[in-house]
Amino acid sequence: MPSGALLFDLPDYPHERWTAHLRKFLPTLDIRATADAQTAADIAYCVAWKPAPGKLHNLPNLKIVFSMGAGVDGIVADPTYPRHIPLARVVDDTLAQAMSEYVVLSVLYWHRRLHDFIGLQRDKKWRQLPAPRAPQVRVGILGFGVLGQAATAPLRALNYQLSGWSATPKHVDGVKTFHGTAQLEVFLAQSDILVCLLPLTPDTRGILDAKTFAALPKDACVINAARGGHVVEDDLIKALDSGHLGGATLDVFSAEPLPATSPLWSHPKVVMTAHSAAFTDPESFMRQVATTIRRMDDGLPPENLVDFARGY
Amino acid sequence: MPSGALLFDLPDYPHERWTAHLRKFLPTLDIRATADAQTAADIAYCVAWKPAPGKLHNLPNLKIVFSMGAGVDGIVADPTYPRHIPLARVVDDTLAQAMSEYVVLSVLYWHRRLHDFIGLQRDKKWRQLPAPRAPQVRVGILGFGVLGQAATAPLRALNYQLSGWSATPKHVDGVKTFHGTAQLEVFLAQSDILVCLLPLTPDTRGILDAKTFAALPKDACVINAARGGHVVEDDLIKALDSGHLGGATLDVFSAEPLPATSPLWSHPKVVMTAHSAAFTDPESFMRQVATTIRRMDDGLPPENLVDFARGY
Repeated sequence: MPSGALLFDLPDYPHERWTAHLRKFLPTLDIRATADAQTAADIAYCVAWKPAPGKLHNLPNLKIVFSMGAGVDGIVADPTYPRHIPLARVVDDTLAQAMSEYVVLSVLYWHRRLHDFIGLQRDKKWRQLPAPRAPQVRVGILGFGVLGQAATAPLRALNYQLSGWSATPKHVDGVKTFHGTAQLEVFLAQSDILVCLLPLTPDTRGILDAKTFAALPKDACVINAARGGHVVEDDLIKALDSGHLGGATLDVFSAEPLPATSPLWSHPKVVMTAHSAAFTDPESFMRQVATTIRRMDDGLPPENLVDFARGY
Repeated sequence: MPSGALLFDLPDYPHERWTAHLRKFLPTLDIRATADAQTAADIAYCVAWKPAPGKLHNLPNLKIVFSMGAGVDGIVADPTYPRHIPLARVVDDTLAQAMSEYVVLSVLYWHRRLHDFIGLQRDKKWRQLPAPRAPQVRVGILGFGVLGQAATAPLRALNYQLSGWSATPKHVDGVKTFHGTAQLEVFLAQSDILVCLLPLTPDTRGILDAKTFAALPKDACVINAARGGHVVEDDLIKALDSGHLGGATLDVFSAEPLPATSPLWSHPKVVMTAHSAAFTDPESFMRQVATTIRRMDDGLPPENLVDFARGY
């Protein structure tokens, strides 16, 4: 029996639908939608995504925070976040599955020139467009953690040349791996299609800038399914307009929803989706939350904790 | 040393670029671009795609015909085709690779609703669109030969539910197989995304018609990368307009180039490519032609021959 209540702090999400899953796994858990000054002391667990600054700090008996997504930048951005409280992020097969689908779709979209074909169709022009075969196309995955590595299986089945870059060394069969700042430029220079799946940290904010784009081969395409904060959007537009980059697929933006005034909406070399690459599956996430709460009740350490030093 | 000349009967293709590959493999082969009444008797080999009716019939010493593509309907359509002469079709890894890429791209395009996202972008509308995960999506491959089976590896790596239908029984690990007319309707009823890779024969002409579309689940999407003759285009448009079908990707058409008057160009639920799903690779094809010519010179039987009774 869990000791303490859970604060479900996702005001933009359908409370009943999500917490119903949690009730299924932990029927006796006391689930709250809000915690005021009187009730703050009851809260032992909190499910959050982008909590109001100071909110978590004001829960004196908090034992753990669960991030609703794989990225935790919306939580650790709060300077008052109580860093002695463990923060668990969702590590979810359905999330990795969804992200792999999105990555493979976006890679094939640019490689097989579907963007050009859609333009030709609009103009009612019949034109055969050649494309290299996948074994001649080099896909570089920037951010080679759980999600980046999951995407390699279907990309390998399509016979792409694969490489991955991460902050720390990683080894994956059939993938050329690079790590650290020193190897970033070499990695970029051999990426015909660059897929960003990095966590957003002070080190990676703005990493997709003019310098990075210049290091990519001519006509390279960029796919960002990580965070809007990774991209310097003005630099991206310049690199597309200059003809250096061939195209970009963007799922995330510096401001979301993307303001109607953004030139990205109507850019002829941009395809965008509204932060829809990979949704957290409520049932799968709540199963993880329940498992962790039970583990903690049994005196076991929680899993999938964020390392605050590296920021993910 | 080959006995007899080769007629390269692809008037729309760059003769020099293609035959250069053949010269590399068979330097002494006598390659002709045309054969008139005087020289017809020299021709022992012919590379063809859509020969003029009667043309092959008028080559008295022909030993074999090589079809430039995997489909041979453009050749056997000629009623005067000399059916005692073997007809070899290209069976080419690069062709299967290209087709797999096209199939996976098209399946993901509809499954992940990229068509809807592109429409939303055009209207500058920010909307998150959910989609099921691939393990919940049933992909049915209509025509389960070399190309259809090749596409299963990357689709399986994406965890789709796979099935295949063919005229004769086939067995492939992890794929539910159906065969023959009797099992067609059951196969269709469990295909959320239908991929047509059939050969075009009298039995399969017009197979994608109102009856077939009605047998598919509501909101099913159709991908045709086989031949335009498989589709009754008016029936397809009706099934899209009625809301029964969710969308269609078409690479091939009843007339090619597709006439500007075709309503398919501007249909809001159609994506089209100009017969570009999979081009025959000239080098790979010419290597096959050379190998077969050498085999025949050595008294061995040619490979990848068409069975005229079944038409492919």
